[in-house]
Amino acid sequence: MKRAVINRIWLAAFLVLVLIVRAHAQMDPLPSWNNGAAKKAIVEFVKTTTEKSSAKFVAPEARVAVFDQDGTLWVEHPMYSQVVYCLDRVPAVVKAKPDLANIEPFKTVLSGNREAMAKFTLPDLEMILAATLTGMSVDEFSAEANKWLASAKDPRWKRPYTELTYLPMQEVIKYMRANGYKTYIVTGGGQDFVRLYSDKVYGIPPEQVVGSAGGTNFVYDKSGKPMLMKLPKLLLNDDNAGKPEGIHLMIGRRPYAAFGNSIGDKEMLEYTQAGDGARLMMLVHHDDDKREYAYGAKSKVGTFPDTLMANCSSEPIIPVE
Amino acid sequence: MKRAVINRIWLAAFLVLVLIVRAHAQMDPLPSWNNGAAKKAIVEFVKTTTEKSSAKFVAPEARVAVFDQDGTLWVEHPMYSQVVYCLDRVPAVVKAKPDLANIEPFKTVLSGNREAMAKFTLPDLEMILAATLTGMSVDEFSAEANKWLASAKDPRWKRPYTELTYLPMQEVIKYMRANGYKTYIVTGGGQDFVRLYSDKVYGIPPEQVVGSAGGTNFVYDKSGKPMLMKLPKLLLNDDNAGKPEGIHLMIGRRPYAAFGNSIGDKEMLEYTQAGDGARLMMLVHHDDDKREYAYGAKSKVGTFPDTLMANCSSEPIIPVE
Repeated sequence: MKRAVINRIWLAAFLVLVLIVRAHAQMDPLPSWNNGAAKKAIVEFVKTTTEKSSAKFVAPEARVAVFDQDGTLWVEHPMYSQVVYCLDRVPAVVKAKPDLANIEPFKTVLSGNREAMAKFTLPDLEMILAATLTGMSVDEFSAEANKWLASAKDPRWKRPYTELTYLPMQEVIKYMRANGYKTYIVTGGGQDFVRLYSDKVYGIPPEQVVGSAGGTNFVYDKSGKPMLMKLPKLLLNDDNAGKPEGIHLMIGRRPYAAFGNSIGDKEMLEYTQAGDGARLMMLVHHDDDKREYAYGAKSKVGTFPDTLMANCSSEPIIPVE
Repeated sequence: MKRAVINRIWLAAFLVLVLIVRAHAQMDPLPSWNNGAAKKAIVEFVKTTTEKSSAKFVAPEARVAVFDQDGTLWVEHPMYSQVVYCLDRVPAVVKAKPDLANIEPFKTVLSGNREAMAKFTLPDLEMILAATLTGMSVDEFSAEANKWLASAKDPRWKRPYTELTYLPMQEVIKYMRANGYKTYIVTGGGQDFVRLYSDKVYGIPPEQVVGSAGGTNFVYDKSGKPMLMKLPKLLLNDDNAGKPEGIHLMIGRRPYAAFGNSIGDKEMLEYTQAGDGARLMMLVHHDDDKREYAYGAKSKVGTFPDTLMANCSSEPIIPVE
């Protein structure tokens, strides 16, 4: 055969190989997961709840999967990004109310001393949250927070916070959704904050975000136009026991699958587990301090009760690989 | 021609006529509405917000339509059916706590004197609601209320309450949904109550029901199984200003269309109207005391401010025809 013909055969063989590899990648819904027990548990759960012949088949309308956000879907260290947002907002708040400049904790925030800020107590943080997240209209808050989300960058990775999500978890969200699961974020973070980017970042629309929520007040502005003002009054503290309570309030269905990473997700996983039929409860474990941060169950921070760990799956630790 | 042939031709012509009438009925999405301005406004609104070429096109994910329930989707007279449920539950509550038998308002409820019950004050009703809707688990409440819904009948029509919905409004719900609108119930009624039948009765799933909601408490039963207890603590009073506040809390999007029937829906309609682009605000008017009840705007009960009425549409009154 002529060399040109041989080359063409090689090229054809190569293209066939590329197509096979691509087809395989399309068949594997979780390509960035290790082939371990965790991945197997997810795939088995989806099969057993979606195949019509399965004894544990779940009707499409009942398929609810819930995901914690901070530390489960995106990076939460060294500080929740929403707390960074609040700290970044303090100068503007002080400009509007100059008296705050000499009052703690605002004084420390203005000093820029991050070490001192890391020692803030819960009441300190609550004061900052109230001052930066309330006392404005819902629309004003959305405009300010959107501006910040578009420009703020994580100091370690120099990238927008909304890009710091975990690829394996993005794959699970898509995989659950492709199998008829309605995916929800159930976060201790602020509901109004997370709703601004949930669709763009996770494909989860705002109405499927359950988070800590403050009250609002329906009022009329000077021109008589109705508006909603954000109040410094907590309606839902969506953490710990607040998570199943929030799920009941906002969704009204018990989830079939729940993903978390910390002790704040314990009750949500227990509530999921207490339902009939097949249920999937999983914890993300962080063990790679080069590519992310090492903390969590194995590193003895936020240790889970053994009973819950054992029930989550035979390998509850999702490798960050 | 032979008579038999002529008969066949007549029969064929008749069948063609039947098919034409049927096709026309299928083309009309609101067959039980009069051909008036109200129907025209609904059809125009749907066209202008869903045709891609329209300047007021609304992206499918933003299409939200909200419906009040009592008096808008089903009969609310002479008493809200959920109040009837609570009154019917009183004997069982008193059996468990016999001391209540001699305390008002329970004493009057046990007497069966409906005229005296009609004079209950708001604090009376709140005591009855707290005693009959809280202090039990979410699952216990669901089981009890489902039993009642399956057996209780309206005294005038001798039919289950869930059959007393308005056909014209059922058609609007379906029509909106067929055009990509996500349909929500936004009711002053109890969220946990309405969620039990919303899917079966209106095709609206529980997670799309926003209603007055009490807090729950996540606890463990004696065997260690987690459960949610219903607390006598109001989280959301989903009436008047509470409706737009509840919409923000539970949906996080401003509706494009809102349907109500009373002054309790005023703020929800105003909030809808204050959005950009095309918005549809409508009121159901009750003017047929033979087939239902006559009350509302025209009958000078619960009169709406003129400005809101004028803005709702050129003919805001939906004929019950």
